Amino acid sequence: MHRLEGKAVVAQGGGPTAVINQSLVGVVLEARKCPFITHVFGARFGVRGILEEDFMDLSQATTRNLEMVAVTPSSALGSTRDKPDQEYCARMVEVFRKHDVRYFFYIGGNDSAETCYIMDTYARSVGYDLQVIHVPKTIDNDLMVTDHSPGFGSAARFVTSAFACLDLDNFAIPGVFLGVVMGRHAGWLTASSVFARRFDHDGPHLIYVPERTFDIERFLGDVDRIYSKMGRCVVALSEGVVAADGQPVLLQMQEEQAERDAFGNVQLSGRGTLGDALSDMIKARLKIRRIRCDTFGYLQRSFLGVVSDLDAFEAREVGEMAVHFATYRDTGGSVSIQRTGDYAVDYVLTPLHQVAGKTRHLPPEFLKGDSDIADSFRNYARPLIGTIPRFDRLIAPIVDTKG
Amino acid sequence: MHRLEGKAVVAQGGGPTAVINQSLVGVVLEARKCPFITHVFGARFGVRGILEEDFMDLSQATTRNLEMVAVTPSSALGSTRDKPDQEYCARMVEVFRKHDVRYFFYIGGNDSAETCYIMDTYARSVGYDLQVIHVPKTIDNDLMVTDHSPGFGSAARFVTSAFACLDLDNFAIPGVFLGVVMGRHAGWLTASSVFARRFDHDGPHLIYVPERTFDIERFLGDVDRIYSKMGRCVVALSEGVVAADGQPVLLQMQEEQAERDAFGNVQLSGRGTLGDALSDMIKARLKIRRIRCDTFGYLQRSFLGVVSDLDAFEAREVGEMAVHFATYRDTGGSVSIQRTGDYAVDYVLTPLHQVAGKTRHLPPEFLKGDSDIADSFRNYARPLIGTIPRFDRLIAPIVDTKG
Repeated sequence: MHRLEGKAVVAQGGGPTAVINQSLVGVVLEARKCPFITHVFGARFGVRGILEEDFMDLSQATTRNLEMVAVTPSSALGSTRDKPDQEYCARMVEVFRKHDVRYFFYIGGNDSAETCYIMDTYARSVGYDLQVIHVPKTIDNDLMVTDHSPGFGSAARFVTSAFACLDLDNFAIPGVFLGVVMGRHAGWLTASSVFARRFDHDGPHLIYVPERTFDIERFLGDVDRIYSKMGRCVVALSEGVVAADGQPVLLQMQEEQAERDAFGNVQLSGRGTLGDALSDMIKARLKIRRIRCDTFGYLQRSFLGVVSDLDAFEAREVGEMAVHFATYRDTGGSVSIQRTGDYAVDYVLTPLHQVAGKTRHLPPEFLKGDSDIADSFRNYARPLIGTIPRFDRLIAPIVDTKG
Repeated sequence: MHRLEGKAVVAQGGGPTAVINQSLVGVVLEARKCPFITHVFGARFGVRGILEEDFMDLSQATTRNLEMVAVTPSSALGSTRDKPDQEYCARMVEVFRKHDVRYFFYIGGNDSAETCYIMDTYARSVGYDLQVIHVPKTIDNDLMVTDHSPGFGSAARFVTSAFACLDLDNFAIPGVFLGVVMGRHAGWLTASSVFARRFDHDGPHLIYVPERTFDIERFLGDVDRIYSKMGRCVVALSEGVVAADGQPVLLQMQEEQAERDAFGNVQLSGRGTLGDALSDMIKARLKIRRIRCDTFGYLQRSFLGVVSDLDAFEAREVGEMAVHFATYRDTGGSVSIQRTGDYAVDYVLTPLHQVAGKTRHLPPEFLKGDSDIADSFRNYARPLIGTIPRFDRLIAPIVDTKG
């Protein structure tokens, strides 16, 4: 086993999270300790920063600044959704060669893992010695192999807290409430709304994820049933719920041409369309007067101050482990988290092709019927989210009326 | 000065807040200690609970349960937007007479203060001895007389935290971001977004409040100017911004008939219309590709775990003071907060008619031009919001490119 000597480049791709900077700082601090990593550069705005030779010299960042950045949400280096082709890779290798870069750490989701795979394959094909390590992050929790992804726990904590307060709000002023949660293809984040429910009558009363076909007639029937019984109804809905024809329901409701990124992902967040359209339908068809809808949007992915301790801890550690895997192993790969106890984890290195561009869905055992989440999901997700603030209902006898 | 002996009824009106239950618990615990208050009832769902003789016996709630309820967001007794007329008042007095209720505490905003005023006037007109006390709460901070309203500090804390993370998000993936904040007639909450700005280049770069006419052409010009200069633009916008003709911009953009409550308030929250329409306009007119918009909706008014300590403290104390004013004074009124130091407050009792149904706007000295907030607002609002979690940008030299 030879030790590559050279510089390291770290970059961040895809959507920000509340703890992605923990991973960045984990990589930087650990890499700065490593004797055969000569220097640590940060590429600005993801792989685009490599393409454009736009680097920050993170060997010259103070440890104190790095520790402050670690607790700062969003991607401190900036991000991109660029997907490199051969020419893009050729240019990146050229830049790496000029600066003698031998280690590349890319923190991101499945699209970023795909970028790593493309880059790794290209570097091999041209005989350039490069260790490419994918450091996992995504609020969607849809990466293959890993038990869960850094970023998910904190976003799930936001979703749980949100539905807890929205359910209390809906109790105070009854009606129908729809909360639209991020999740393009997988319902992990939406499923986390289940933790807002403590008593049987608590919401969300209905939870719809992309893993189950969304049928509008059945949805209206579900809302009608809950509302008739309880006088109110709180619904958690993934932005990416799909109709029987496999098309996102949102797209069926959108007239204008949808916006797509380089990986072919359609814009689902950043507007209220899905929730508003379903609200209008409930109003028209069920004749329920008070219907409110919030699309959580970008608030949920990196809200300042809503962080799961475990998530922050693990995000740091996957960054640190990435450096150890890169320097003490012969091949690159994707760092993944293996749950080995209740609750304890190991970190393992997974071949890039097993993670690149793939999506892990909620398994059937985590689902309950078409609009609910099973207890097995609670066992899985509870440690990741951490303890949310306690809250309670008023408990006192109802006074007898006087004749 | 005579001491009325009898029961007390407490109720909650209007929109929930993160700390309105602190006021409820303040009233209940203090009233339970008072020797001439024989019993404490909670009316469920605001004045409607009085009308329908729907009471909880809060003398029988445990102190431990009440303390848990105090830290629970939203209105634990339930709320209403009912506005009593003469017949409604007659029925309430009839119910009060049956149960020998002599103290009525109503926790709410300017509409609830109006309800107090109507009820107080009616009770006097029929010679029924009743102390009516309005306990202030509103995230909108638009109550007259009081320096600020319980509920505002915590909601403002949410808005500040939200814009802090959304600005970092927009830095990471540049584009235009619009955040639509609650505020029907007054821009206090939207103005609080200014605390997300630490450096000159931080967002929100533009802040629009209902106190200034919203001109769409000027708005587009502002966005274009910031975006051209910085390559990104974060906008904070009150849901209630008004056009030159005095109409809410939202209404001009809505085709269908708007929903109104008993106080004549139009539904502004709970859908994405305003932000989506403005986003479409930016896209069409300015040819900017990436535009995202989040309408904060109900998340901002009582988010679990996002609470200003000072706000929670004062919300409790206005509830407690309400009981002391009701029992040791001859007349009812509205409890208001007077700022007497930096930072220190006194509580005073204000005649109901000075608060009922009126709206306090941002004074001109808190505004800066048409789309910014003055430093004097920061001095006013900073203690109310409390310290938000620290965060920082990455600081390191840019690496020279190699030829």
